[in-house]
Amino acid sequence: MRPSGRKQDELRAVALETGATRYAEGSCLAKFGHTHVLCTASVEQGVPGWLRGQGKGWVTGEYGMLPRATHTRGRREAAQGKQSGRTQEIQRLIGRALRSVTDLALLGDRTITLDCDVIQADGGTRTAAITGAWVALSKACAYLVSEGVIKANPVTGQVSAVSCGVFEGAVVLDLDYAEDVAAEVDANFVLCGDGRLVELQATGEKRPFTGAEFDEMMRLAKAGCMALGDMQRKAVAAG
Amino acid sequence: MRPSGRKQDELRAVALETGATRYAEGSCLAKFGHTHVLCTASVEQGVPGWLRGQGKGWVTGEYGMLPRATHTRGRREAAQGKQSGRTQEIQRLIGRALRSVTDLALLGDRTITLDCDVIQADGGTRTAAITGAWVALSKACAYLVSEGVIKANPVTGQVSAVSCGVFEGAVVLDLDYAEDVAAEVDANFVLCGDGRLVELQATGEKRPFTGAEFDEMMRLAKAGCMALGDMQRKAVAAG
Amino acid sequence: MRPSGRKQDELRAVALETGATRYAEGSCLAKFGHTHVLCTASVEQGVPGWLRGQGKGWVTGEYGMLPRATHTRGRREAAQGKQSGRTQEIQRLIGRALRSVTDLALLGDRTITLDCDVIQADGGTRTAAITGAWVALSKACAYLVSEGVIKANPVTGQVSAVSCGVFEGAVVLDLDYAEDVAAEVDANFVLCGDGRLVELQATGEKRPFTGAEFDEMMRLAKAGCMALGDMQRKAVAAG
Amino acid sequence: MRPSGRKQDELRAVALETGATRYAEGSCLAKFGHTHVLCTASVEQGVPGWLRGQGKGWVTGEYGMLPRATHTRGRREAAQGKQSGRTQEIQRLIGRALRSVTDLALLGDRTITLDCDVIQADGGTRTAAITGAWVALSKACAYLVSEGVIKANPVTGQVSAVSCGVFEGAVVLDLDYAEDVAAEVDANFVLCGDGRLVELQATGEKRPFTGAEFDEMMRLAKAGCMALGDMQRKAVAAG
Amino acid sequence: MRPSGRKQDELRAVALETGATRYAEGSCLAKFGHTHVLCTASVEQGVPGWLRGQGKGWVTGEYGMLPRATHTRGRREAAQGKQSGRTQEIQRLIGRALRSVTDLALLGDRTITLDCDVIQADGGTRTAAITGAWVALSKACAYLVSEGVIKANPVTGQVSAVSCGVFEGAVVLDLDYAEDVAAEVDANFVLCGDGRLVELQATGEKRPFTGAEFDEMMRLAKAGCMALGDMQRKAVAAG
Amino acid sequence: MRPSGRKQDELRAVALETGATRYAEGSCLAKFGHTHVLCTASVEQGVPGWLRGQGKGWVTGEYGMLPRATHTRGRREAAQGKQSGRTQEIQRLIGRALRSVTDLALLGDRTITLDCDVIQADGGTRTAAITGAWVALSKACAYLVSEGVIKANPVTGQVSAVSCGVFEGAVVLDLDYAEDVAAEVDANFVLCGDGRLVELQATGEKRPFTGAEFDEMMRLAKAGCMALGDMQRKAVAAG
Repeated sequence: MRPSGRKQDELRAVALETGATRYAEGSCLAKFGHTHVLCTASVEQGVPGWLRGQGKGWVTGEYGMLPRATHTRGRREAAQGKQSGRTQEIQRLIGRALRSVTDLALLGDRTITLDCDVIQADGGTRTAAITGAWVALSKACAYLVSEGVIKANPVTGQVSAVSCGVFEGAVVLDLDYAEDVAAEVDANFVLCGDGRLVELQATGEKRPFTGAEFDEMMRLAKAGCMALGDMQRKAVAAG
Repeated sequence: MRPSGRKQDELRAVALETGATRYAEGSCLAKFGHTHVLCTASVEQGVPGWLRGQGKGWVTGEYGMLPRATHTRGRREAAQGKQSGRTQEIQRLIGRALRSVTDLALLGDRTITLDCDVIQADGGTRTAAITGAWVALSKACAYLVSEGVIKANPVTGQVSAVSCGVFEGAVVLDLDYAEDVAAEVDANFVLCGDGRLVELQATGEKRPFTGAEFDEMMRLAKAGCMALGDMQRKAVAAG
Repeated sequence: MRPSGRKQDELRAVALETGATRYAEGSCLAKFGHTHVLCTASVEQGVPGWLRGQGKGWVTGEYGMLPRATHTRGRREAAQGKQSGRTQEIQRLIGRALRSVTDLALLGDRTITLDCDVIQADGGTRTAAITGAWVALSKACAYLVSEGVIKANPVTGQVSAVSCGVFEGAVVLDLDYAEDVAAEVDANFVLCGDGRLVELQATGEKRPFTGAEFDEMMRLAKAGCMALGDMQRKAVAAG
Repeated sequence: MRPSGRKQDELRAVALETGATRYAEGSCLAKFGHTHVLCTASVEQGVPGWLRGQGKGWVTGEYGMLPRATHTRGRREAAQGKQSGRTQEIQRLIGRALRSVTDLALLGDRTITLDCDVIQADGGTRTAAITGAWVALSKACAYLVSEGVIKANPVTGQVSAVSCGVFEGAVVLDLDYAEDVAAEVDANFVLCGDGRLVELQATGEKRPFTGAEFDEMMRLAKAGCMALGDMQRKAVAAG
Repeated sequence: MRPSGRKQDELRAVALETGATRYAEGSCLAKFGHTHVLCTASVEQGVPGWLRGQGKGWVTGEYGMLPRATHTRGRREAAQGKQSGRTQEIQRLIGRALRSVTDLALLGDRTITLDCDVIQADGGTRTAAITGAWVALSKACAYLVSEGVIKANPVTGQVSAVSCGVFEGAVVLDLDYAEDVAAEVDANFVLCGDGRLVELQATGEKRPFTGAEFDEMMRLAKAGCMALGDMQRKAVAAG
Repeated sequence: MRPSGRKQDELRAVALETGATRYAEGSCLAKFGHTHVLCTASVEQGVPGWLRGQGKGWVTGEYGMLPRATHTRGRREAAQGKQSGRTQEIQRLIGRALRSVTDLALLGDRTITLDCDVIQADGGTRTAAITGAWVALSKACAYLVSEGVIKANPVTGQVSAVSCGVFEGAVVLDLDYAEDVAAEVDANFVLCGDGRLVELQATGEKRPFTGAEFDEMMRLAKAGCMALGDMQRKAVAAG
């Protein structure tokens, strides 16, 4: 029995709200239950120094969490003078995921930064961030095309993410915080629209896990990402 | 004529939404037109080292801005490894303003941190932050009293803030970004509920200003803060 | 009765000593009683990156305090690896004040840095810094003109600063440390030569203050700055 | 055909040399071909602050790379003033892997730090680090038992790691640098002695990957880790 | 012929002015020609953590230079966020020199910090700093004894410092900046009152140097330090 | 009697192993007894900004120590976010020593970085570093000449280093850790091939020292460096 009463393969109530902020070229407030992540896509001229002169653009991610997004207040990273290892891991993951579905040559001499800021956190912030960031990226690229800034849309496919884990011996989909802190195994899956894998990470938090457990997590994750993919397409189409 | 069509002494549409986040002891999403600041009040046991053993609590403020809160993306302070001078100025101001209406002895061995995070910025973020932070603080303290954690409410009065300036030769109230970048004079007023001043700052951005101009700014600010004070009381009562 | 025996509207003994250091293009050791601030104006070719190509120069301020300038030793900011929020506030204030009386276009592709280093601190270091920095700036600009480096003197007016406050219920001018730590209200005024205001900041340290109290502080500050302005002109003329 | 001429399921020449340094309680120079990682286990009294009073010890990892371990010189992290996101990711991985096979309660009020420093890098440094760190940890714990410092050996099982990837369309084991830079898919597997999984990470570097490709990588990884496990046991027994 | 016209074995005009600052327990403005270093001795209760419980005090040095102490402005270390290698070298040297003549057990549970801040720099700042710091330390310790804080004076001997070098082929004493930048060999000598050596450092800046050259530098340094020692004793006695 | 049983003027067993790492243009593992320092010479195109356009190259040193190189683990500098004063002192020394025997004009628009990383530390790491760095530099320059990258070898002479000290009243050569922690006087000598001095540093750690003691240290150091110079030449010739 899950704390939330959900079935093992049941996502939380998900909402992907576009136009969530007034100034960004694309934006999406991604809600996975009580986890709320504001994703904005900002287009800027130019690319990082090491990429200059290669005729390609860049897509990158940044991740942050408001100090009181969580049950107890965390320290503000800007005040501490550095980003935690966890933050850096997550923002590297976001960047890789979004680049996997972007044709950087079509983007031209531009950088798109996906800022994923957690307003409220109840587990699964990185998967909500990736899922929402794809919507924000898609809106920004559609805007660039509609304005005639670029000719072809550089977004080549869809990408979404969801967590799975083993909680009280059962494999479950889309863990909330109550499950996350107690999970025996914790995994994150990033899938593209055709069901292939972009990235996966699995950790035995309390004990090692078997291949069979992993296969079951993979099965739930695929179904979850299919459902998220539908919502992403609707959000982009409607927004 | 103001860019927004407002009258000289007219505030933007203001909303003070309590319960804006699920976990904080008190919270308020303060909207001054397109400027949106999420203010949370977090209660933690203990006080900073230099205050220990004095039988008093502490109230402090922290301020941040999401990178794409603004018209063009700014750099993330956590990634830069330090908070700007502007950020530090503002969070020091928030802390002083809220402490001016808190009886720290009644708070006991506790720290309340007012995190003011700008989700969207269209000028006047520090005044929206102070106005919303007072609502968040009041809700948190009421909660502490209702839970029996403290006996008496340490909030001794009300505090709100508003900006004034000289824009195209005219003294105006509550500048938005379009006015702010072009203003000849820029001022921020922090007032308590009885109309007395807690803090004021005025800068001749493009030229020095006269005592008469300052007096007119002060007059508008008082009226503005009276109106904000009404909204604060309603927000606290209703929330 | 003030601890120093001064009258309410009485400045401390003020000395503005030019030629205080051998190498700077302009310098002034500003003494407000036991507060001693060494102000140097350094002229360097070039401007900050964001100003390049606009045909304008730049004037900026930096502020520091020797660790044992004060009654008890403070930590060295260079050793701590960052400047405090207070230091940044003050150096931003110094820069704004001096720029308000400089024609940056006449300065050409040059930066003048006003370094204000507190050798001994007895309250009012920022007002002594601004008052002395104007003398240092004026000497440096006169030197540039006399050397034929620039044709016209970019200093367009005079600027000086003084503090006021409410101490034991009375409004007083130019607080020393003994008054500063106990003051109910603390304010800093930056005025230009014609009596107009460049910047003002007032804080209710122990309680809010009334408009009447503020008006009285303003009145004392104007008289104080007039007197400081006379001394500045004499220092520049004599130096 | 692999650049090294190896078969798809062939490890590089592996050597696990214990006693690699004179002072550490346990040490192992792990060589995976031209990748050489010096792993030391240092035992220190006490635990991190957040763990105090819980009657448990701590095992953690740190990772570094000599500036010229690589084909072209990289910048020294100590000189840059911070550890890269990649470094932090790896050292967090090392710590989790080793803690998964340590009974922290048996360790008592002690911290064991596994320093994994890359002397020479030819791909796969994190897997060599984990594999060598387990040897160093085992030697250090055996030493603690032999000295009577602790009664029972806290190492509860074995852990080793190896990379897999898709290179020129073929799934291969234990990628070297020439393969790593060109791989389409890159994965790291951390397995315990009974073949269960402790951690896995897979990234589609150049394109998404299928479930079938992942299963094949998993198969090779299991065989690789079995072989590494044999070598680890021999190294601990012989050392 | 030296730029200043001095003889090879001639010190610059030296002044050691005690009582140079109002608040420090001991202070000395050390002038070696145009090099002016303000040295303050600050007494604080307690010792660094690693020294606690050993019944001993601590003496340490800190060194800084005002940005425009020099011919051209240098960057402020506090603004750069770190102290240069040169600064750290010098302050470590100052600390070692002063500790060599202090009985730390007699000092008790106290730290004396010698802050040496260069107000104006014309070469030889570290030797002026050490020479002046000894005067400041002596004054502070005499004050502690006179106030009955400690029973016996912990200063066990005298220490002073001077530079030597090879300039245009000739060995010279107490180099000024014009000599320093052009010197072939540069050396600093720290001697105690009986002529023994506390520290010496010699560098072949433009070419290696012979043992004979070194011996001649040592001879001049001894004579220079004898003269400085006389001035130190007079300064302490008179101050 | 020395702890190691060595005679007063006896070096530890010294080995200078070239080809110690696969990728560097030149390398040497310098062993002075149990002190092992890996020295690599990395050639990179370009010079630091302040040297550009002068037609000269640059030679610089960096120094690091593995956390468990020592008897007890030290903190990792990269994790602490800064290099210690000691580290900076040593790497500045290494750079000066190697530049003293390099014709930077012959090097052209190139930088050679000597990374000296201490794998195991038993005293005298800086002298082993300099001695090994010269071998690495020589190998790298010979390689550049052999590849036709530069026409003439920029290494103009030889440089080596050794420590001396006063231990239990006796002057001894090449101190190990047991001697170093207890030494009354500690000195480092950097000599070039013809016996002239490049750099010397001597510190009275526990008491001042006499000129006679210093002369005796100098005598032992010269003999030590002559022996080291022979080994360096053999290492370069054989490698």
